[in-house]
Amino acid sequence: MVNARIMLDRSTHREADRPSSLVAQFGPDRPLRLDAGVELSPFQIAYQTYGTLNAARSNAVLICHALTGDQHVFNTHPVTGKPGWWGSLVGPGKPIDTDRFFIICSNVLGGCMGSTGPASLNPATGAPWGLDFPVITIRDMVRGQAMLLDHLGIEKLFAVAGGSMGGMQVLQWAASYPDRVFAALPIATSARHSAQNIAFNEVGRQAVMADPDWCGGRYFADGLKPSRGLAVARMSAHITYLSDAALHRKFGRRFQNRQNPTFSFDADFQVESYLRHQGASFVERFDANSYLYLTRAMDYFDLAADYGGVLGEAFRDIKTRICAISFTSDWLFPTVESRAIVHALNAAGARVSFAEIDTDKGHDAFLLDEPELFAIVRGFLDGAAAAYGLETSRPEISGSGISGQ
Amino acid sequence: MVNARIMLDRSTHREADRPSSLVAQFGPDRPLRLDAGVELSPFQIAYQTYGTLNAARSNAVLICHALTGDQHVFNTHPVTGKPGWWGSLVGPGKPIDTDRFFIICSNVLGGCMGSTGPASLNPATGAPWGLDFPVITIRDMVRGQAMLLDHLGIEKLFAVAGGSMGGMQVLQWAASYPDRVFAALPIATSARHSAQNIAFNEVGRQAVMADPDWCGGRYFADGLKPSRGLAVARMSAHITYLSDAALHRKFGRRFQNRQNPTFSFDADFQVESYLRHQGASFVERFDANSYLYLTRAMDYFDLAADYGGVLGEAFRDIKTRICAISFTSDWLFPTVESRAIVHALNAAGARVSFAEIDTDKGHDAFLLDEPELFAIVRGFLDGAAAAYGLETSRPEISGSGISGQ
Repeated sequence: MVNARIMLDRSTHREADRPSSLVAQFGPDRPLRLDAGVELSPFQIAYQTYGTLNAARSNAVLICHALTGDQHVFNTHPVTGKPGWWGSLVGPGKPIDTDRFFIICSNVLGGCMGSTGPASLNPATGAPWGLDFPVITIRDMVRGQAMLLDHLGIEKLFAVAGGSMGGMQVLQWAASYPDRVFAALPIATSARHSAQNIAFNEVGRQAVMADPDWCGGRYFADGLKPSRGLAVARMSAHITYLSDAALHRKFGRRFQNRQNPTFSFDADFQVESYLRHQGASFVERFDANSYLYLTRAMDYFDLAADYGGVLGEAFRDIKTRICAISFTSDWLFPTVESRAIVHALNAAGARVSFAEIDTDKGHDAFLLDEPELFAIVRGFLDGAAAAYGLETSRPEISGSGISGQ
Repeated sequence: MVNARIMLDRSTHREADRPSSLVAQFGPDRPLRLDAGVELSPFQIAYQTYGTLNAARSNAVLICHALTGDQHVFNTHPVTGKPGWWGSLVGPGKPIDTDRFFIICSNVLGGCMGSTGPASLNPATGAPWGLDFPVITIRDMVRGQAMLLDHLGIEKLFAVAGGSMGGMQVLQWAASYPDRVFAALPIATSARHSAQNIAFNEVGRQAVMADPDWCGGRYFADGLKPSRGLAVARMSAHITYLSDAALHRKFGRRFQNRQNPTFSFDADFQVESYLRHQGASFVERFDANSYLYLTRAMDYFDLAADYGGVLGEAFRDIKTRICAISFTSDWLFPTVESRAIVHALNAAGARVSFAEIDTDKGHDAFLLDEPELFAIVRGFLDGAAAAYGLETSRPEISGSGISGQ
């Protein structure tokens, strides 16, 4: 079994209300009107910033995180103690350069790291929202981010970037607020979630909901967590983040600490042991209900549906420069999905470039050490910064493609 | 939730010991020596036959079933009441023609439809074996099938055919008993289970074992079944049986009985509803422990490992004619796996042909209406039958490729 029944970790839980990051509070005067047709109020958005906002307030870059990511892009994570999730791409001298840009990343609405979500306390009851939290959409997340920018006094972003569910937010930004974004980087993403991806998400949700410790979403009331179900959900999803080739390269059919099979149901193979570890460590940092809400938001994402089914209409008259990136071995968000985005942008007359990066690392490539990704992001942002009139403070790096890696 | 906690279905359970099919009993004088190093004795093999064995006993075709299949190839299933699982390919006038051949299919060892497995009664205790049942391998299954043929007085098979886990058995037959098989049809299979496939199987096992109603494998003692866990396992596996394209064609992003999302965790999308149904119906007919054992047998399958890591050695001096078949959209057992088999057979100087069938139906294509599959199987068996000196009793059909479909 992945995990014995474990008690609620109060320290993780507190992160949902009193996070180890900056928090923007939105009171009754600033409700968030959700796609579900209800108003969320009051609510809060937890966020991190890196670098310095310039005097013209023109060097802000918003980073949008993926399903299980959060606002801790570059700093040590307050729960896991591990480095931030996009330290490969973001930092001093990195392609998204904290010495040049003012970088903002907020925990998405529905998340569990300090932005209001099902793990947050419902002011009406004093207990966590659980399934009483309204179902949210990618557009709701982006509306919340726009309100955060208003709160920070930032009228226009120099750039917005993100991969996977983060890329969905990038596309939604370009569609909803084209005048507030100069450049956009949707990476390893799609303009609508495919049937196969909905199916995988549904398996994850059913795994959570099948765990008796889920208690109909009210596990917090009994001090429980549906750890076994959430671990199974994570294991299932994790397979989709890697490619067959990457799994073969990393693990093949190698046994764990032995030469021969045990003829048992122990984790004989290294790949089994790895997956069990992925499941067990995930439940230590993530809220099960939040997992339900965020996967649901991805499933509902269908950008064209809001524009009469024509994706190009979502980007009509857009001025934003866009650079779409996909990875050859990503079968969760395959290149064909990025091509559909690029075709729609071309149909809308947008300024768009596209790169498919050759790698065997699968969907997770956007989080990993991919020199070609770094070079493309750096080159795109350098060109956009010059066009936007941003001062090039680090000329010795900005022109060099992949130096500093 | 997929399923409320349900009580053990006694009628299904009895099928494990007193199946609705023929049964061969192997007493203490005929033990089965397992790869795990123990002897299984006594044991039984449940099987079905179709057609008539000719006087020369030379027209027998063994069909090997896949993970969740069983011996009910062509007749109505005794538990589900549905048609047999390979009625598309097997029957009067079909490519595997019951008017010509004597067809045998046995439930695999470790199965739950009458061959000895974890759901069978352990004679030492009078209760089901559960996890006391020894872990079995594909080779053990094939050893049991060979003993069944001895029992039936069939020295040599005209042909052996199967897809997926059934194809693994076909390959094992060719390697273990080449002189007992004239022709072999391994379909949509592999000579060793990949890391990705082990990973998917492990997710399924963990889903079962995470269900408290699994009770450490002793659920039968409390009259329970780990239905929720097994349903999640089935849902996860079912995604791998279909292609992204097939899921898109069948379901796309269509909502179930409505035009707009419900903003809830109901089965909004048709694909969710479909998967839930697949999970719920599976648990009515399949034993959860059996699912653990059979997935484990697949994971352990690595034919080359028994021959110094050189697959060609498994087929050294083989006389068996082999026709390997794969499907373009099968990502569970992709064409590259069949190519590895064909390369090894070529290296061994075997008589081998290979067909990759263009279809969007994914791995499940071997069970579905695929005229090209039917034509290839018919053509291969016709040629082999002529070479084997089998009388062509139905010349008006045997030469026509796909008639009778």
